[in-house]
Amino acid sequence: MPILRQEPLTGEWVIIATDRARRPETFAPQKKEKKAPSPARVDNCPFCYGNEHMTPPEVLAYRDESPKADTPGWSLRVIPNKFPALEQSDNGEGLFIGNFFESCQGYGVHEVIIETPEHNRHLPDLNDYELALVLKSFEERLVSLAGDPKLKYVQIFRNHLREAGASIEHPHCQLLALPFTPPLLDIEYRRCRDYYEEEGRCLLCTLLEEEEKMGDRVVLENDSFLAFIPFAAPLPFTTWIAPRGHASSLEVSQDNWEAKLVPVLKGFLSKLSQKLEDPPYNLYLHLAPLRSEPLSYYHWHMEIIPKLTIVAGLEMATGTYINVSKPEEAAKFLREQKVNVESYK
Amino acid sequence: MPILRQEPLTGEWVIIATDRARRPETFAPQKKEKKAPSPARVDNCPFCYGNEHMTPPEVLAYRDESPKADTPGWSLRVIPNKFPALEQSDNGEGLFIGNFFESCQGYGVHEVIIETPEHNRHLPDLNDYELALVLKSFEERLVSLAGDPKLKYVQIFRNHLREAGASIEHPHCQLLALPFTPPLLDIEYRRCRDYYEEEGRCLLCTLLEEEEKMGDRVVLENDSFLAFIPFAAPLPFTTWIAPRGHASSLEVSQDNWEAKLVPVLKGFLSKLSQKLEDPPYNLYLHLAPLRSEPLSYYHWHMEIIPKLTIVAGLEMATGTYINVSKPEEAAKFLREQKVNVESYK
Ligand SMILES: [Zn+2]
Ligand SMILES: [Zn+2]
Ligand SMILES: [Zn+2]
Ligand SMILES: [Zn+2]
Repeated sequence: MPILRQEPLTGEWVIIATDRARRPETFAPQKKEKKAPSPARVDNCPFCYGNEHMTPPEVLAYRDESPKADTPGWSLRVIPNKFPALEQSDNGEGLFIGNFFESCQGYGVHEVIIETPEHNRHLPDLNDYELALVLKSFEERLVSLAGDPKLKYVQIFRNHLREAGASIEHPHCQLLALPFTPPLLDIEYRRCRDYYEEEGRCLLCTLLEEEEKMGDRVVLENDSFLAFIPFAAPLPFTTWIAPRGHASSLEVSQDNWEAKLVPVLKGFLSKLSQKLEDPPYNLYLHLAPLRSEPLSYYHWHMEIIPKLTIVAGLEMATGTYINVSKPEEAAKFLREQKVNVESYK
Repeated sequence: MPILRQEPLTGEWVIIATDRARRPETFAPQKKEKKAPSPARVDNCPFCYGNEHMTPPEVLAYRDESPKADTPGWSLRVIPNKFPALEQSDNGEGLFIGNFFESCQGYGVHEVIIETPEHNRHLPDLNDYELALVLKSFEERLVSLAGDPKLKYVQIFRNHLREAGASIEHPHCQLLALPFTPPLLDIEYRRCRDYYEEEGRCLLCTLLEEEEKMGDRVVLENDSFLAFIPFAAPLPFTTWIAPRGHASSLEVSQDNWEAKLVPVLKGFLSKLSQKLEDPPYNLYLHLAPLRSEPLSYYHWHMEIIPKLTIVAGLEMATGTYINVSKPEEAAKFLREQKVNVESYK
């Protein structure tokens, strides 16, 4: 008998398939081409070390050696996207109200976070210090972009592999600073505010407590962070990573990333890669609006969605998903994978 | 300079890329494997004629010859999905309210509309009469399913090719009757009701008039239907087909499908297939809620979304899309393709 589950955070109902459910191990890509491993440096890759002149000038970099911008010697670089989806220049036009259709200038910021100078080191291959730098760079860019009052929300996201939308192979994240609050964040803010007004506490704090109590959807945890497959996951192996302690955004929490989030993030991505043969995935952060004071009703988190199935007509038509993987089974499958995270240090 | 456009029907803002925009002809799949053409009948295909015993008993069929159910001689069959996402049996449990998480039985109906007994004839290959039967079957199933008061909305959809989610090659549509109004329909109903209350007329009637007046996003039209790429199309070549005359749902309009919708639908799908090398697509209907009286504020339509790009992290995180194809250019590209629709008769 199929079941419907409601996601507390978004309010959406998800169909959890039973008759058509697939066992967790069947989601590993079947006939993946075995590609030759990539080299550490690719001559024509604009993100590789030594090719700094191929990108727009960096807006942030962490350097051990050379203090000179746009030269080698860095361990992380943030650069403007060469083909930005939005631009931070104001032509003074503002909102154009037409007869019926409305449009306006695409104001915003589009940046690339090059996570490592080496072409072939993905997130689980970075050492804890390097991975903490990636998180620190998010924090720094959020603080910096908050200076522009026209920007309302900064979306940080990562597309892993071509099948998940990565057009450049070199490991990187992107950020898009938007001049409005995007619709999915709007829904989360609204629901969390309503819950707070009714219950007097944060919805996600409650949810994390419930998940911990039940335990069967938890993949990995430490004292500070919980990685779990949500109760009403819309797609197979959708995973959320959230701080146990309440914090509405990354930059207001001023956490010790290396000791707290890094082990859980690295552990989870290692499990995913090892158990499902390095699947493509999308990873993104959901944060409070830019420049907001610490909010008691909103709780930041990370969502990771492996691309294991095809989003088809039903989902596009209705916004209602059929998940062909039981969250509890997927979580157990990943939980039981022993990962020696230490070995990556 | 990138631009933002707002979709009047959904309220969503879409980024229309400029720097990273691609010319229409670049969306034809590049290295598509040339497969041998499929035969008219496949021995182990459950949807082929002669294999009627391989499916659950039909709930509707159009037959020229044999009047006997579940035997050959039909031109269209509707059958229950063998692995239904929802089931119409009531275990009396109803909504289960947990401590915090809510779930309930997955009540509903999941059916397959087998469009033709032949394995290798897709929608543009059907003659006008056969294609009209497909639309007539939607209408009949809507009327029949309206008899179950627990069903709130019937989503009719079609996944064309494996890349768009079709797990069985034989040409077919699906319908899923849901026990709730799905979120994307909810948004459309709300916005259309608001517009009607404010302006005293139907939002889509206004939109169609504007599209016709401007003309540069129209792909194809006749006296009764308009096929166009919407102003704020979220994805390349997203196309809507809507009746010019106001009607809130398919079954209340009681149209002469063969004379009116069929030429536009067939013409559009032929253009799409010929200009973009038979791309995968999702097609679906947006209708008024099941059993509603004719509504003056809602206007039914069909949406077709070719799968030409990858929906990636940004879109999944925010619900905000970057369209790398200018709607006006895509519409011109399809509009200028001459299709001899008559030749299919
Ligand atoms: Zn590189
Ligand atoms: Zn909280
Ligand atoms: Zn067949
Ligand atoms: Zn209308």
